[in-house]
Amino acid sequence: MSTNETMELIKRGATEVIVESELAAKLQEGRHLRIKLGLDPTAPDLHLGHTVVINKLRQFQQLGHHVMFLIGDFTAMIGDPTGKNTTRPPLTREEVVKNAHTYEEQIFKILDPDNTEVLFNSSWMNTKSAAFMIELASKYTVARMIERDDFHKRYTAEQPIAVHEFLYPLLQGYDSVHMKSDIELGGSDQKFNLLVGRELQKNYAQKPQCILTMPLLEGTDGVQKMSKSLGNYIGINDAPSEMFGKIMSISDTIMWRYFELLSFRDMREINQWQEDVQKDLNPRDVKIKLAEEMVTRFHDAAAATQAHADFVARFTRNEIPTDLPEMTVAATGEGILIGNLLKEAGLVASTSDANRLIDQGGVKINGEKIMSRSLVLPLDQTNIYQVGKRRFAKVTVALKE
Amino acid sequence: MSTNETMELIKRGATEVIVESELAAKLQEGRHLRIKLGLDPTAPDLHLGHTVVINKLRQFQQLGHHVMFLIGDFTAMIGDPTGKNTTRPPLTREEVVKNAHTYEEQIFKILDPDNTEVLFNSSWMNTKSAAFMIELASKYTVARMIERDDFHKRYTAEQPIAVHEFLYPLLQGYDSVHMKSDIELGGSDQKFNLLVGRELQKNYAQKPQCILTMPLLEGTDGVQKMSKSLGNYIGINDAPSEMFGKIMSISDTIMWRYFELLSFRDMREINQWQEDVQKDLNPRDVKIKLAEEMVTRFHDAAAATQAHADFVARFTRNEIPTDLPEMTVAATGEGILIGNLLKEAGLVASTSDANRLIDQGGVKINGEKIMSRSLVLPLDQTNIYQVGKRRFAKVTVALKE
Repeated sequence: MSTNETMELIKRGATEVIVESELAAKLQEGRHLRIKLGLDPTAPDLHLGHTVVINKLRQFQQLGHHVMFLIGDFTAMIGDPTGKNTTRPPLTREEVVKNAHTYEEQIFKILDPDNTEVLFNSSWMNTKSAAFMIELASKYTVARMIERDDFHKRYTAEQPIAVHEFLYPLLQGYDSVHMKSDIELGGSDQKFNLLVGRELQKNYAQKPQCILTMPLLEGTDGVQKMSKSLGNYIGINDAPSEMFGKIMSISDTIMWRYFELLSFRDMREINQWQEDVQKDLNPRDVKIKLAEEMVTRFHDAAAATQAHADFVARFTRNEIPTDLPEMTVAATGEGILIGNLLKEAGLVASTSDANRLIDQGGVKINGEKIMSRSLVLPLDQTNIYQVGKRRFAKVTVALKE
Repeated sequence: MSTNETMELIKRGATEVIVESELAAKLQEGRHLRIKLGLDPTAPDLHLGHTVVINKLRQFQQLGHHVMFLIGDFTAMIGDPTGKNTTRPPLTREEVVKNAHTYEEQIFKILDPDNTEVLFNSSWMNTKSAAFMIELASKYTVARMIERDDFHKRYTAEQPIAVHEFLYPLLQGYDSVHMKSDIELGGSDQKFNLLVGRELQKNYAQKPQCILTMPLLEGTDGVQKMSKSLGNYIGINDAPSEMFGKIMSISDTIMWRYFELLSFRDMREINQWQEDVQKDLNPRDVKIKLAEEMVTRFHDAAAATQAHADFVARFTRNEIPTDLPEMTVAATGEGILIGNLLKEAGLVASTSDANRLIDQGGVKINGEKIMSRSLVLPLDQTNIYQVGKRRFAKVTVALKE
């Protein structure tokens, strides 16, 4: 692969490369570059959003570079020393080790375990003295710290920033020094901290690391970033059918972003599909390929095949969706005729339309086909009505007032 | 002594007491209070300005309290980690010990060595970890640090503040925690740091120390604070005659401030003298008492007697002062008559005044009495002229243009 092609691959999906010319030069050196990715050990359940940057690490690994996965357990074991955040107690050694194993199980679905070095920063930071901390803190100014976006916002909004919060970016930066990192990857929200690493390496007479930031993946809603607390996430430990179904639920637009950031397929293939969809290819068929790839990655090919089959079966059965609209229609004391109900509920344009569809077998109540135009639905009864394959409503009959 | 009298004694000369009611309560507890004073071990040559606060420590000692003299060697051994201040290299262990001995020699001229505890903060800080430093830093906010006067000025002037500078007040404050300080003394410029100690003690569930700040003593010029670099200092290791002479050189106004801050005499006695001087007492005679007290303190009574005698002898000899005014008077080609020169130089009111003083033997040139009214001083000659005991001038004769 030429350096140009390598650069193209590495830049796929990236938000920013600092500095591109330095990165190209490092890639041309021909040695195994040391690639760093740091993760917080407090939240070991990964979702697809987390994997964006791990996928990037995998690309470096496949190019033959040395991948270092850093577990930042040192500060996690300190916890929140302000004592204000009671929901974030310090982790014990045992919890850190347990979380790390959980991490490894998950990341090794993406990375080659034989070529991945897993490091814990406590192994060097626990031996460091207060004097070391002071020397480290001397390497950066207060003004530059306050330039960091979130610090700046809090400072100007007069929200308290504890002094130790200025030490954390320095610790993260020192990890790069200790690890002799050539390239550090991170989410685009990590840019400031990655730059501190660059600065510190210069201070310690090292060649500064290049920085490659990746975007934060949108969740299944296609709007907010994927997050467990927002409920828009696809966990990598999700069951095959659940994962398949969640991917099938994303919009046809966000699908292309998922392809770029999550798929291991060549961009040329993906771009071709995008063109084909603009002509006559059904986007659903492309989405199925993405869902199959993800389930294969985090489970296996058999699970993907099964999840696909299940999905098709459910689709074919026209299983009742869970988020169908609910409404009430008004009736006399006698109840309401099925044709009128379907029209009132907006499931058909007219009663004659309803009657035609009933004759064709296109109307179901609670999943059961009905064939009688003269069916009367009694007061207070609630049923799920389906017209054709897609139109659903949960309708209650109530007395007209 | 009543608590009121004790409070009066303790407040003598003080800039501020925080909090006065707390201090009174502590004094009434009847136990030996732990009194802290910290000093930087990088500048071991003390001058009278440094002794202001040591004198206050002595008062507490004489009241039976436990005096702790803290040598802040921990950060001194780190030096200036920014590497920008090449004039402030880190001190070695040996230098710290040597400086500490120099300090002790000096402070024990004021304090009772048997009842003074000398501590080095390296003895606890050297064992502290980076994690400790982070926890300590979590106890204070960035905004409150920036409130410190010098930080605030530098921050708003966009002069760099290195992050570790925020750690130093915390370390100083932690010393109070470790030492279980009841009262901390310091210069008025140290107020912020002493308050941090108060805050941290609360954090560590200790009763907060009271704070007693002392003013910065003016130098012999009576204007700027005493400082070696300004050359307006009286070193406590100055030779007896030098110390005596320097004290005799201070103004009659600043003398009272020196009495308040440096003398161990009762304020009632000093106030009485001040009243007497407003009537008929010569301030010089009071100043001599101050000079004798200081020389006795830092040398001994015999040295004070000798220095006094030396001073009187020099004064009687009318030794030429070193800082006499210099000027030029204009003359014709023939030179200038002595009476005219003295008048031009402002040493006499008139030529007849000059002639009368010459007749009385009250005029000297270069320390030699002259008796001739008709003396003509030639062009380009520079001499020291003295009229009476106090009026001096160094005068050059130049051709009138």
